[in-house]
Amino acid sequence: MATITGVSPLAVPLPRLGPIAGVRIGAAEAGIRYKGRRDLMMMTFPRGTTVAGVFTRNKCPGAPIDWCRDALAGGRARALVVNAGNANVFTGRAGVATVKTTAKAAAALAGCPARQVFLASTGVIGEVLPSERITDALPALAEALTEDGWEDAARAIMTTDTFPKASTRSAKIGGATVTINGIAKGSGMIAPDMATMLCFIATDAAIPAAALQAMLSKGVGPTFNSVTVDSDTSTSDTVLLFATGAADHPPVPETGGTVLRDFRRALDEVLQDLALQVVRDGEGAQKLVRIAVKGAVSHKSARAIAFAIAHSPLVKTAIAGEDANWGRIVMAVGKAGEPADRDRLAIAVGGTWMARNGTVVPGYDEGPVVTHMKGREVDIAVDIGLGDGAATVWTCDLTHGYIDINGSYRS
Amino acid sequence: MATITGVSPLAVPLPRLGPIAGVRIGAAEAGIRYKGRRDLMMMTFPRGTTVAGVFTRNKCPGAPIDWCRDALAGGRARALVVNAGNANVFTGRAGVATVKTTAKAAAALAGCPARQVFLASTGVIGEVLPSERITDALPALAEALTEDGWEDAARAIMTTDTFPKASTRSAKIGGATVTINGIAKGSGMIAPDMATMLCFIATDAAIPAAALQAMLSKGVGPTFNSVTVDSDTSTSDTVLLFATGAADHPPVPETGGTVLRDFRRALDEVLQDLALQVVRDGEGAQKLVRIAVKGAVSHKSARAIAFAIAHSPLVKTAIAGEDANWGRIVMAVGKAGEPADRDRLAIAVGGTWMARNGTVVPGYDEGPVVTHMKGREVDIAVDIGLGDGAATVWTCDLTHGYIDINGSYRS
Repeated sequence: MATITGVSPLAVPLPRLGPIAGVRIGAAEAGIRYKGRRDLMMMTFPRGTTVAGVFTRNKCPGAPIDWCRDALAGGRARALVVNAGNANVFTGRAGVATVKTTAKAAAALAGCPARQVFLASTGVIGEVLPSERITDALPALAEALTEDGWEDAARAIMTTDTFPKASTRSAKIGGATVTINGIAKGSGMIAPDMATMLCFIATDAAIPAAALQAMLSKGVGPTFNSVTVDSDTSTSDTVLLFATGAADHPPVPETGGTVLRDFRRALDEVLQDLALQVVRDGEGAQKLVRIAVKGAVSHKSARAIAFAIAHSPLVKTAIAGEDANWGRIVMAVGKAGEPADRDRLAIAVGGTWMARNGTVVPGYDEGPVVTHMKGREVDIAVDIGLGDGAATVWTCDLTHGYIDINGSYRS
Repeated sequence: MATITGVSPLAVPLPRLGPIAGVRIGAAEAGIRYKGRRDLMMMTFPRGTTVAGVFTRNKCPGAPIDWCRDALAGGRARALVVNAGNANVFTGRAGVATVKTTAKAAAALAGCPARQVFLASTGVIGEVLPSERITDALPALAEALTEDGWEDAARAIMTTDTFPKASTRSAKIGGATVTINGIAKGSGMIAPDMATMLCFIATDAAIPAAALQAMLSKGVGPTFNSVTVDSDTSTSDTVLLFATGAADHPPVPETGGTVLRDFRRALDEVLQDLALQVVRDGEGAQKLVRIAVKGAVSHKSARAIAFAIAHSPLVKTAIAGEDANWGRIVMAVGKAGEPADRDRLAIAVGGTWMARNGTVVPGYDEGPVVTHMKGREVDIAVDIGLGDGAATVWTCDLTHGYIDINGSYRS
């Protein structure tokens, strides 16, 4: 099978990420699977750094997920170690041992308890991850960390990604300016929940762990948990958010509150930006597809319908073929199993309403829709016509590229 | 995009279907969408024929589904009219009018009330089906019906199918021999429930409608409702079973019972045979995949896990690439959301257990698995290790052919 070597046509330029006070970051070649590229990433944080995290709901998670869930209970972080090429999933006792050995080695280098080390792995499932590859590379990597290693880090965590993913925003907390940097990787096996394989965000704000967790848990809903590439849910999906507290701003209460309003806005923007970059790098993706459902009986129902459309291979191949086949959208609405009445349903593509009240719109002119379908971004709007429930999700088209990439991934 | 013209490599030969006493059957060219081929099929049945049916659970069904659901309440059938090329779905009042006009015309020809006429349509969604194409063709078609038109009928209902699908069995009822003939069409948008677009079965047995319905409803569970091509659920899926009563056997009680034991066996075989033929003609399919899950906490849970595997694009593309990627099977088990413990999970391909107790089987030899993956039929077995729940489903691989067919279906 052909190998896809080009960059996604939906790629966005990598923004320059400046330093986050307190964060030291870098990458190294550990030779875990890839040759001639960096595949190991490390961040360290100052004492007092708080952490929040959300993880895959896959019932067969990797050993690093178990480790992070436990570590998160402490609410404090001093180091993050991430490798690409091997997911350390379904590796039994060997996988648990690798996690422990890695955390211990990083803890010694960062001068902290192992429980303040966070870990993530991405890549092939079911092959033992040799911990010595990581522990051999860690001392030199830890020594070489700088404040400016964000781009190297974004590149080191890539697997089938065709471009590195990063985002940055600044925000005000009580008059002081803080910065949020985030990097992400992911291009397949992207579906809620979580919707990226890996995403790491750091800020110099000083935010109690509980408030940080509340913001992150809420923030992933309309962002990472609202995107899908292929309906498959990784065993390794991880979003971690670290707050070093190096910035000088008025104290934030344990429960957060209005002082964090602008920070929340900026965090949500970073999450949205990175989530859409993941879809833009969807395996084989040629088009970014936004699906907005309104008029459902509830938000939950709208979301289920939007995902039924976004997961439908028939809808996704029609988009790949630049065919505004609203019949397949009707089918997908109906297969969601949510309340729907075909005689109240309306469907628009690119802002043109094509179908309404159970049939094609009288005098419907296909022209503007055909033009819209030829573009890189396709907008689908569905009005169920029953209630106030609304939800928006994003996906990509299903193309030959997806088959090329996934029909020969291991070989 | 390329057009697929070849016959599925998984095709099976068309069996010869002899007459079913009382059934007259044939096909004609109505020119609904296709040119130069038959696209309209009709069957007529003698007075007293009972009928059973199961239909799509899609919430946006076509007008013919609404019609059949109503008609089924009467339990009697005298005619069946089926067209290919236009599904008469999401066609509003025009679609309802077409159904009524067609039923009325067929009823006049068959000499029965319109409510004893059953209808089905398959093809493009959202385009008005011109009833005059059907009503113009019906009189000559009705005139030309014979006992031997089964093959013509099987061919006339095809859309993207690459081979016609039929099955026949005989069975004993109280010492007398009865026959069951079935035809089906479907190759995409195949997922429960129902799992075929269209299937029509007739027998000369004399079976009360209630007993017939009970057998059909039960029979589709492990057959048509256990196959999937692409997880999409048609708006038109229909299985209808007609019993003419022309055979001479002891009366069957309203509730069926043991006298129908052999008939049930034969009916189940016809349903299974046709359901698997539909998967064998899955759009772009190169391999037939059987997924047997055991050890789940319940039958329902096993079924959900089996379908999570069968629907997974990553599993299906791995099979297309002849890659026994059991990591993706682990992922799919986990994404089902059903109780599972990765450390009790076991996975086999082609009878070779590859993974067990949360890791690869010690000394696992990939050789026989690689050989198995190169064949046309792939067997996946999963033991969840938690309980007694078991279920088997069938699907096909996801290939470039699927993208070719569905990326240019309307054009």
